Amino acid sequence: MLSKSQIKYIQSLGHKKFRDQERAFIVEGPKMVREMLNSPNTRPIHIYAVAEFTDAVIGDHLLTRIREPELERISSLVTPNQVLAVFEKPGFPPPQWTNSISLLLDGIQDPGNLGTIVRIADWFGIPQVVCSSSTSDIFNAKAVQATMGSISRVHVLYEEPETLIRKYPELPAYAAVLDGRNLYHMERVHRGMIVIGNESRGIRGELLKLVAHPVTIPRIGQAESLNAAVAAGIILSHLVPGG
Amino acid sequence: MLSKSQIKYIQSLGHKKFRDQERAFIVEGPKMVREMLNSPNTRPIHIYAVAEFTDAVIGDHLLTRIREPELERISSLVTPNQVLAVFEKPGFPPPQWTNSISLLLDGIQDPGNLGTIVRIADWFGIPQVVCSSSTSDIFNAKAVQATMGSISRVHVLYEEPETLIRKYPELPAYAAVLDGRNLYHMERVHRGMIVIGNESRGIRGELLKLVAHPVTIPRIGQAESLNAAVAAGIILSHLVPGG
Repeated sequence: MLSKSQIKYIQSLGHKKFRDQERAFIVEGPKMVREMLNSPNTRPIHIYAVAEFTDAVIGDHLLTRIREPELERISSLVTPNQVLAVFEKPGFPPPQWTNSISLLLDGIQDPGNLGTIVRIADWFGIPQVVCSSSTSDIFNAKAVQATMGSISRVHVLYEEPETLIRKYPELPAYAAVLDGRNLYHMERVHRGMIVIGNESRGIRGELLKLVAHPVTIPRIGQAESLNAAVAAGIILSHLVPGG
Repeated sequence: MLSKSQIKYIQSLGHKKFRDQERAFIVEGPKMVREMLNSPNTRPIHIYAVAEFTDAVIGDHLLTRIREPELERISSLVTPNQVLAVFEKPGFPPPQWTNSISLLLDGIQDPGNLGTIVRIADWFGIPQVVCSSSTSDIFNAKAVQATMGSISRVHVLYEEPETLIRKYPELPAYAAVLDGRNLYHMERVHRGMIVIGNESRGIRGELLKLVAHPVTIPRIGQAESLNAAVAAGIILSHLVPGG
């Protein structure tokens, strides 16, 4: 049974300001909640679940049994799915910038695109994704769900990409643009930074000036552009070490 | 000014059955509507637009001027944008299967993914996308908008992928799977078929049996899978002729 204050608390977590203040965010669905419960980087604050969801590792003090209509009331999914959990924001050790590849996002607006990019980073073993202040919040419910659990493995930080590029001039910096060098002619790298820009405006000029290697995915047909997450996936598949 | 029967007609086009019967579908927003108006493959049936939208090529008999609240009533976008147009479904010459690369979709469920895949096909110059009957409808409003106009350039057909693979045994067939050959070791091709499977279940076993080249995007990290559109983009970038 849900109390009024629980409902109010969960609804507040729909707002970035409250998520930042509480250092908490929401995860939904049994698959992703279980994955987060098993991650060393995330700690549950409270779980709201219907009877079908059973998990031995959750202590009673963390669990509130609810009914389907109650789940529907607090869920932000079109099809609510067994469980909604509140987690502490994940904790990670400081990034090893000079030993790894980082993905730098300049103004990714769509939370679904942002979450998908974090999932792609996880697939390619990219340990950190750095977001400009103009990028949307990774703890937005849609972004979290789109990560499919990768939010517990990839360190997502908010810091201006130009600060980082200026701080590590020895690291090669790449950027996805429409008139750069042919991506297929680039060598794979073990360390560096890869910048992905806003869905419609691309990368800001002042940031692009700092990037030594603007690269382009060769276009054969006539589409004006590619979705930002698709472009990120293609670029990583050509630049990161192969299997 | 919108009539009741116009509103009813536009709303009916939200249903696949009615779209099939009328051979018509809806496109929204000035950029995409203009692109469709300029395409040789698509013909407008009627345009509903607010005063900001002006286009010299539309005859008066095709245009109904409406006000913002009327556009909001008929639009399926979160932010309605100047114009909603009804178009005839595009017409294309029969595919040249043996001279080109085709993308075959086995049960892509999400209309946004489907539209994004058609946009990717357009970028890489893939002339046709073949959808299994279990794939969602490309003329669904969300799918149309996700193509960003590529629906007027890429021929999307509904036919079972296995029928096509059996019909052209001389064409190399590739499929995106989790345990195939390393994509990065494959040669680029000028003709063939590439199968992309359902977002969670992948490709059906009976279809996969017909595919000579199952390929895998090497995974370095821990994400369980990649989004279907992202996987399609990565595979095309490694298999189609480079720029």
